[in-house]
Amino acid sequence: MTIHYPNGQGPQRPAQSRPQPAVNFADRGMSLEAEINASNAYYLATNQAVIHKKPTPIQLVKVDYPKRSAAVVREAYFRRPSTTDYNGIYHGYYIDFDAKETKNVTSFPLKNFHQHQIDHLAACLKQGGICFALIKFTRLTAYYLLPASHLITAWQKQAQGGKHSIPLATLKQVGIPVQLGLHPRLQYLSAVDQLIARQKGVNHE
Amino acid sequence: MTIHYPNGQGPQRPAQSRPQPAVNFADRGMSLEAEINASNAYYLATNQAVIHKKPTPIQLVKVDYPKRSAAVVREAYFRRPSTTDYNGIYHGYYIDFDAKETKNVTSFPLKNFHQHQIDHLAACLKQGGICFALIKFTRLTAYYLLPASHLITAWQKQAQGGKHSIPLATLKQVGIPVQLGLHPRLQYLSAVDQLIARQKGVNHE
Repeated sequence: MTIHYPNGQGPQRPAQSRPQPAVNFADRGMSLEAEINASNAYYLATNQAVIHKKPTPIQLVKVDYPKRSAAVVREAYFRRPSTTDYNGIYHGYYIDFDAKETKNVTSFPLKNFHQHQIDHLAACLKQGGICFALIKFTRLTAYYLLPASHLITAWQKQAQGGKHSIPLATLKQVGIPVQLGLHPRLQYLSAVDQLIARQKGVNHE
Repeated sequence: MTIHYPNGQGPQRPAQSRPQPAVNFADRGMSLEAEINASNAYYLATNQAVIHKKPTPIQLVKVDYPKRSAAVVREAYFRRPSTTDYNGIYHGYYIDFDAKETKNVTSFPLKNFHQHQIDHLAACLKQGGICFALIKFTRLTAYYLLPASHLITAWQKQAQGGKHSIPLATLKQVGIPVQLGLHPRLQYLSAVDQLIARQKGVNHE
């Protein structure tokens, strides 16, 4: 039997027992960069890793030095970075990656990368680094860690007339899904653990 | 017998056989930053290491986006970096350091560092990184790699009323001298090799 309450609402439960949505929708609209920065701040505060975003390089043209106050940049231009955006250290491993978002829902376009980023990832990989791209499909709210080795291969194939994008199906095969949680929301170090295990030749499948 | 030539100058030798100075004085006045950048470019080109200087972080206030041309920063301020200036990878090791110059000739003043840099080095050290300060005594043209562990100890002692500087004699004991050469001029990876050996507990003295 349904009881009809005067105000048309059901009975209010005490605050503690109110059902919580299983997923946190609060930061659905966060940019991938903001999400990664939040994860990095959490990992740093909990002594799990030291990973930072590099500042955007700027070409200074005119700087004023007013008396008794801070220098003011009056004319400057953004430069293209010569490396990836993020690097740092985790459990003794050198971590290096770039983060990319796409609105596509079936594939990730390679035009999001530049030659110098691919070269940088290849150079770091050669030195034994843990290198990857962190890809977000914004419309699917899906995240994949794509190992740099696969990215470099796809890039080289493209140069030889191959595909201009990596199909989502391929990403599901060769990439590592990044799970969402609460602290931090974007738990990408768990995916990094799997990549480290792979690079060591350990089969964690 | 001295021959007096009409124009008062001695005989000109052919260009090839002119005596060359044994040491290249051309870049004596180079800043430490320029020297390190040159070394890093050489190490990168020869596949020895991938180490870059991080761009200076800038707080953007006003950016113009003129039609059909690049965005122009019209007002911005320099921010204090939250990390050290240099990091990268070398033989699988995460490398992290800051570079400091002093005009002193008997000691290195700790005021050249900031708390956040010390904290960052300590956090990277805890993760297993190879962390240090690269110190140049400009008037002595002497360079030392100071392991972060020693820097952190000196910093903590200073906070407890200890010395405000590290004597050069101490640097000679606990630091590793960085040799000058031709390619690159500042051969700091050789000093890093010694630091790695120390951290592994291998005695290379």
